[in-house]
Amino acid sequence: MLLYHHINGALTDTHAAAIGLNDLGLLRGYGIFDFFLVKNKQPLFFQDYMDRFSRSADLLGLELPFSREDTYDHIQELLDANQLNDAAIRLVLTGGYADDSYTPSSPNYIIMQHPMPAVPEAYYTKGIKLMSYPFERELPEIKSTNYLTGIRIRNLLKQAGAPEVLYHNGASISESARSNFFIVTNEGVLVTPEEKILHGITRKQILHLAQDLQIPTETRTLLLSELPKAREAFLTSTTKGVLPVTQIDDITIGNGAPGPISQQLMQAFTDLVHSFIS
Amino acid sequence: MLLYHHINGALTDTHAAAIGLNDLGLLRGYGIFDFFLVKNKQPLFFQDYMDRFSRSADLLGLELPFSREDTYDHIQELLDANQLNDAAIRLVLTGGYADDSYTPSSPNYIIMQHPMPAVPEAYYTKGIKLMSYPFERELPEIKSTNYLTGIRIRNLLKQAGAPEVLYHNGASISESARSNFFIVTNEGVLVTPEEKILHGITRKQILHLAQDLQIPTETRTLLLSELPKAREAFLTSTTKGVLPVTQIDDITIGNGAPGPISQQLMQAFTDLVHSFIS
Repeated sequence: MLLYHHINGALTDTHAAAIGLNDLGLLRGYGIFDFFLVKNKQPLFFQDYMDRFSRSADLLGLELPFSREDTYDHIQELLDANQLNDAAIRLVLTGGYADDSYTPSSPNYIIMQHPMPAVPEAYYTKGIKLMSYPFERELPEIKSTNYLTGIRIRNLLKQAGAPEVLYHNGASISESARSNFFIVTNEGVLVTPEEKILHGITRKQILHLAQDLQIPTETRTLLLSELPKAREAFLTSTTKGVLPVTQIDDITIGNGAPGPISQQLMQAFTDLVHSFIS
Repeated sequence: MLLYHHINGALTDTHAAAIGLNDLGLLRGYGIFDFFLVKNKQPLFFQDYMDRFSRSADLLGLELPFSREDTYDHIQELLDANQLNDAAIRLVLTGGYADDSYTPSSPNYIIMQHPMPAVPEAYYTKGIKLMSYPFERELPEIKSTNYLTGIRIRNLLKQAGAPEVLYHNGASISESARSNFFIVTNEGVLVTPEEKILHGITRKQILHLAQDLQIPTETRTLLLSELPKAREAFLTSTTKGVLPVTQIDDITIGNGAPGPISQQLMQAFTDLVHSFIS
């Protein structure tokens, strides 16, 4: 059980850590967040995450009340207080308190620490199934707090035996609820959608690593109709890293097991993370 | 300044009234609400609002922790505590506290009281301008707390001199951010969209009143291309009642002043409300 959070620059005991009822994040879903891992007290890819967090804030017209350096210091303070070296950090910025319940004021800035998230090991060795679902996230380039559809369809996913969803517009694929999506085509090209998605930090690292490994890559429109011929598929996210996908609805991807390029990138990403914390 | 709110069945001092950080309403925008007026301690159209609130909860898989009768009693308790006879009540139901920041648990149920909202008198005598904007609310039939786009475009509205927005999909009109939309056609028919909208309680009352007044009505797809020929237009909402619209972008509606059917319905709605509280 974690004891402390950070609210508007102050270390706050969990029992006291709360937000007033007229916060626009709560009343109007007007909020953004970001989420990254900390290993040996080092926030991984910190500048990338802060770049995205700032961009999300800008796009909603919210001003960050603390500098990047302050945020770094607050995170260290939090890690010390909670006596954890490895953890996940969530930054949340809301529209602040609104007398009229609608017009943003001074944002509320929250830093929360979570235990390191766990993904079942079998997901990586066997790959997972995705359920396709027709949906496009509102303002997808913003990491907003809006997960209405993703959470609402969780029982459909459970029934389908799919731990995650694959959003599409009937023709092209965008992303999963909390992950980016990649395939390896029959020609061995790594493809991931480029538009109407949240630009994941892990996605960005994977594209760099693929380049280093001389795997041909394309960031472009990815059609649903390309799935049956795909050799491999995987998700990327902060929590999951590279997670192989072996089935989408009734389509088996490749031979139904995690493919060599997925495994190569999984290993390369693990090595990259280790290189930062050693 | 209101002194009390109601959280999970308990009357709570405003200074203490807060929600924990891992509430899914705050972290994931997973929440619904409803909002209605109270006059002389009587919640107006209470059963209608509670029907809708229950429907929204059902559609998100959230269970209401209190009966309708309990909610009525809690509202009376709140009115007494705050010593107000006329006010607005906001019910908020969230996905509750989530250890994994994603999976709903026991919902948090909040009842807030606001001062009676004020709409400038000139809006009713002169009518207002709307700015059209291409957008469809996510899960529009649910009164969710998601107002990301509505709040994000508030500065565009201000620049356009439009107090409210008119959402459309490029061809047909749906609704405003917090109101339903009606026109009176050149043939004198009252038309309002029926699909992909939030079914407003005021909208419902207006459709009944129009029937009583033998005004021909149609609930159907309403095209943007019908606006230039419309004789009248208005918004309906809990806060606004019937609010005449006299301009949409560069299109002047009718002769640019609130029309006779709008005024007739405005009066009929005012009379209806008075009949409930006298």
